[in-house]
Amino acid sequence: MTTRRTFLTATLLLGATAVSARLFGQQPPDSAGAADSRLIEDLVAAYRVLAHQGVLDGFGHVSVRHNRSETRFVMSRSLAPELVTAADLIEFDLYGNAVDARGRALYSERFIHAEIYRARSDIQAIVHAHTPSLIPYGVSSVPLRPIYHMASFIGDGVPVFDIRKTFGMTDMLISDSAKGRALAQVLGAKTCVLMRGHGVVVVGPSIPIAVGRSIYLDTNAQIQTQAMALGGKVIYLDPQEARKIMDAGENRGYERAWELWKTKVPGQ
Amino acid sequence: MTTRRTFLTATLLLGATAVSARLFGQQPPDSAGAADSRLIEDLVAAYRVLAHQGVLDGFGHVSVRHNRSETRFVMSRSLAPELVTAADLIEFDLYGNAVDARGRALYSERFIHAEIYRARSDIQAIVHAHTPSLIPYGVSSVPLRPIYHMASFIGDGVPVFDIRKTFGMTDMLISDSAKGRALAQVLGAKTCVLMRGHGVVVVGPSIPIAVGRSIYLDTNAQIQTQAMALGGKVIYLDPQEARKIMDAGENRGYERAWELWKTKVPGQ
Amino acid sequence: MTTRRTFLTATLLLGATAVSARLFGQQPPDSAGAADSRLIEDLVAAYRVLAHQGVLDGFGHVSVRHNRSETRFVMSRSLAPELVTAADLIEFDLYGNAVDARGRALYSERFIHAEIYRARSDIQAIVHAHTPSLIPYGVSSVPLRPIYHMASFIGDGVPVFDIRKTFGMTDMLISDSAKGRALAQVLGAKTCVLMRGHGVVVVGPSIPIAVGRSIYLDTNAQIQTQAMALGGKVIYLDPQEARKIMDAGENRGYERAWELWKTKVPGQ
Amino acid sequence: MTTRRTFLTATLLLGATAVSARLFGQQPPDSAGAADSRLIEDLVAAYRVLAHQGVLDGFGHVSVRHNRSETRFVMSRSLAPELVTAADLIEFDLYGNAVDARGRALYSERFIHAEIYRARSDIQAIVHAHTPSLIPYGVSSVPLRPIYHMASFIGDGVPVFDIRKTFGMTDMLISDSAKGRALAQVLGAKTCVLMRGHGVVVVGPSIPIAVGRSIYLDTNAQIQTQAMALGGKVIYLDPQEARKIMDAGENRGYERAWELWKTKVPGQ
Repeated sequence: MTTRRTFLTATLLLGATAVSARLFGQQPPDSAGAADSRLIEDLVAAYRVLAHQGVLDGFGHVSVRHNRSETRFVMSRSLAPELVTAADLIEFDLYGNAVDARGRALYSERFIHAEIYRARSDIQAIVHAHTPSLIPYGVSSVPLRPIYHMASFIGDGVPVFDIRKTFGMTDMLISDSAKGRALAQVLGAKTCVLMRGHGVVVVGPSIPIAVGRSIYLDTNAQIQTQAMALGGKVIYLDPQEARKIMDAGENRGYERAWELWKTKVPGQ
Repeated sequence: MTTRRTFLTATLLLGATAVSARLFGQQPPDSAGAADSRLIEDLVAAYRVLAHQGVLDGFGHVSVRHNRSETRFVMSRSLAPELVTAADLIEFDLYGNAVDARGRALYSERFIHAEIYRARSDIQAIVHAHTPSLIPYGVSSVPLRPIYHMASFIGDGVPVFDIRKTFGMTDMLISDSAKGRALAQVLGAKTCVLMRGHGVVVVGPSIPIAVGRSIYLDTNAQIQTQAMALGGKVIYLDPQEARKIMDAGENRGYERAWELWKTKVPGQ
Repeated sequence: MTTRRTFLTATLLLGATAVSARLFGQQPPDSAGAADSRLIEDLVAAYRVLAHQGVLDGFGHVSVRHNRSETRFVMSRSLAPELVTAADLIEFDLYGNAVDARGRALYSERFIHAEIYRARSDIQAIVHAHTPSLIPYGVSSVPLRPIYHMASFIGDGVPVFDIRKTFGMTDMLISDSAKGRALAQVLGAKTCVLMRGHGVVVVGPSIPIAVGRSIYLDTNAQIQTQAMALGGKVIYLDPQEARKIMDAGENRGYERAWELWKTKVPGQ
Repeated sequence: MTTRRTFLTATLLLGATAVSARLFGQQPPDSAGAADSRLIEDLVAAYRVLAHQGVLDGFGHVSVRHNRSETRFVMSRSLAPELVTAADLIEFDLYGNAVDARGRALYSERFIHAEIYRARSDIQAIVHAHTPSLIPYGVSSVPLRPIYHMASFIGDGVPVFDIRKTFGMTDMLISDSAKGRALAQVLGAKTCVLMRGHGVVVVGPSIPIAVGRSIYLDTNAQIQTQAMALGGKVIYLDPQEARKIMDAGENRGYERAWELWKTKVPGQ
């Protein structure tokens, strides 16, 4: 009992993973080596762009899969997105273990990222956010639907993850691998998943696409809310139209907007 | 087959119009000569003003008819509106062919502009936008109506273009002349047309008027949405009142606001 | 006929009042002398504060009664509020005639101010605005009501002026003395009056109070709209409570906020 | 009679408490000594952060309990929150008496703070605000409820204080100890209390927590209003989930966001 209590205290003080690895004699995972510098730049930009665009506030995070290893990803230490720099980035394995935490506090929900990278080899970037416009669609009987062509990536609907279904009463956080796996399962092959009473996860085959989807998912939700407030009948994008847009290049990979968004944050 | 595949690749790399003209032995259209420098300044300002005022985001575009030729118009290469400078402007004919693209990517929806200039000799400037406040009125059974004197230009209603009616399932874009013509037909003699699940086109006899209408169409939509949310009976502007305002000079050509809007963007 | 047509053209080119005075051999009204410099500073600040706070956009205006004469008031030449400086201010009489227009364009709705100063000797400052949050309450069967203590000045309700009742189909503008008088009559002894399909007029015994009321009328409308959207029963401020707040000094004359608002605009 | 009138005039000129103490021969309360400089820095930051985040406008205030005495607290002189500096801070006792007002005007509602510090020894910081998103929930039959994990601190509901119940028709202000006590009673052991037709009080065991709760209470209200506007059934956070989040550290004391918020205001 005493040992366990001491362990818990130390964990709280120093950051759980690194400490647990050391206490139990585990080695931290090996590094895949330095990640591509362009990837690092884009990841830092993604943190700042998402904060500037109102998708993230003081909480939430973005990650990118390591370009040298399928089983490594990179994200910031526990820090408000707008403050993230390249020096804050840490490499993780798919169990949420940091390669070299150096005592820095870690995002407790890094397991969202780890388990989605494990489940979805097509995914290179992941955003977790509490975007205000999206919370209603995670708690309402009214589903989020694509209302215009910029949201074609949700043409086949957005699943809602309710942590209560598998884990009962919790603190709502995806703070271990089991919860991450359950979330990844509800995400399935989709581009995003709403989390009841919590937020959203958006994934993509590149950083600009994951960022672009996050921004237009927000805009789409705001528009849908306004459209429903009018009280009339609303026509949504047809799933076939959505598919045609995706096939045609999904808003050209958001590159035109991505170039703009980056000009609005420092360090670019 | 090989030839066609090579052509497609080259097209993607270099910009469709210029390349197709060259490959098929077509000449690009002749230039009407240098456009008036004031017109160019105003066009660059229009891009930046509409971005600053929230009418445009990373997508959408503005054009102006060339002052030396009825059959030429000027708009930017494919670029986020806020980043457009005079160096990015390209001259087009009414088939959407660039006079001198020099391999730069073109807006795929330039056919909106080409076909409206062809159909409406009274029009000198055109805006295409995805303004969030307007999308609901393109997908709802509730029509957009003028709620105050600043929106007199929609006194006789706003038509809604549904691409599905003529073209079935598409990627929603006005990416060729036929689609541009169909859109111009629904616009008719009006000042703007909503596009179901996509956006809006606003036209005018000058750049400041097209910009002013775009901004007040946005404001009018926001106000109407709030008015309807109150749940009471709403009185709209009478069509006769709207006509009197138009006859009296339509908000004095928006000149007073145009001078203000320009002060808020760089390069003025 | 020819004479009249020539007159109208000249009027449009040079500004109606000054020209008409000259053409008909009328003298412009005498000046009451230089207005108090603090009043001038506050008036310029009012224009800029109201623009910064979103009450005014590129249109609308503020005026102050001249400190040396009950029958003179000061407002800007026709200009977007945010751009107004002391050099743009012009003195007017209560017929809307400029003392010294020097060919500058005048606000066509200066008669709002002229007629209210004539009717209400207790009023020293007037704001005319198209504030988006307020337009719904001028066109809806739902009345604007005080939802919290900051809006005690509308404790006894806000009248709505409908220009159609007296003048039939118009361009909606208060562009002559008769229309100004009709508006002043509906205002009566109140602090503000909504104009159907147009905007609002707010009055006060000082510039900071007229500005403060304009800002909190806007905020109150936004809050009421949100409160009604909840769908439950709403309790408004009791008229007796409103009166007690007014008797206690109406938000201390808004001085605490006025000092803040001024820090946010240039030239202070 | 004359004496009383003179007293009232002097009171208005110099600030009620200090004057009344002097006129009636009372001594101002003793100081507990200089407060911790980190506490002072955080209090100034709190004023500015809450203004920057839109929780406070030109009115409202924050206080902190003195680190050297349970019966003293510190808050600004009467001043718009965004303008507060360390030089504006004044020490008070739990009767709302200033230790050294030096003639400066005091917030008339300092009794909110005094009486809550008296009633709640667990509380170290208090915010009083008129946040627009929250006013509806103080006047509507629809209760404010936690819609996502960031608002776990209202998991057991938000009481509404109606000043009319005990004091009848008033100017709505908590301008004496009796009113402060009545408000503290309705607050009870909760983290916040809505004030009908007025605003909100939020309390916490530290400045960052009181600030963080104020910001997320605002966000939660905005989200709930949007969720209800969708018209479907809404699932709120389960009280047990809320409790688990509180037990797990309530958003880690908002430290991650607090570091961010401070970077956005001057003087940090």
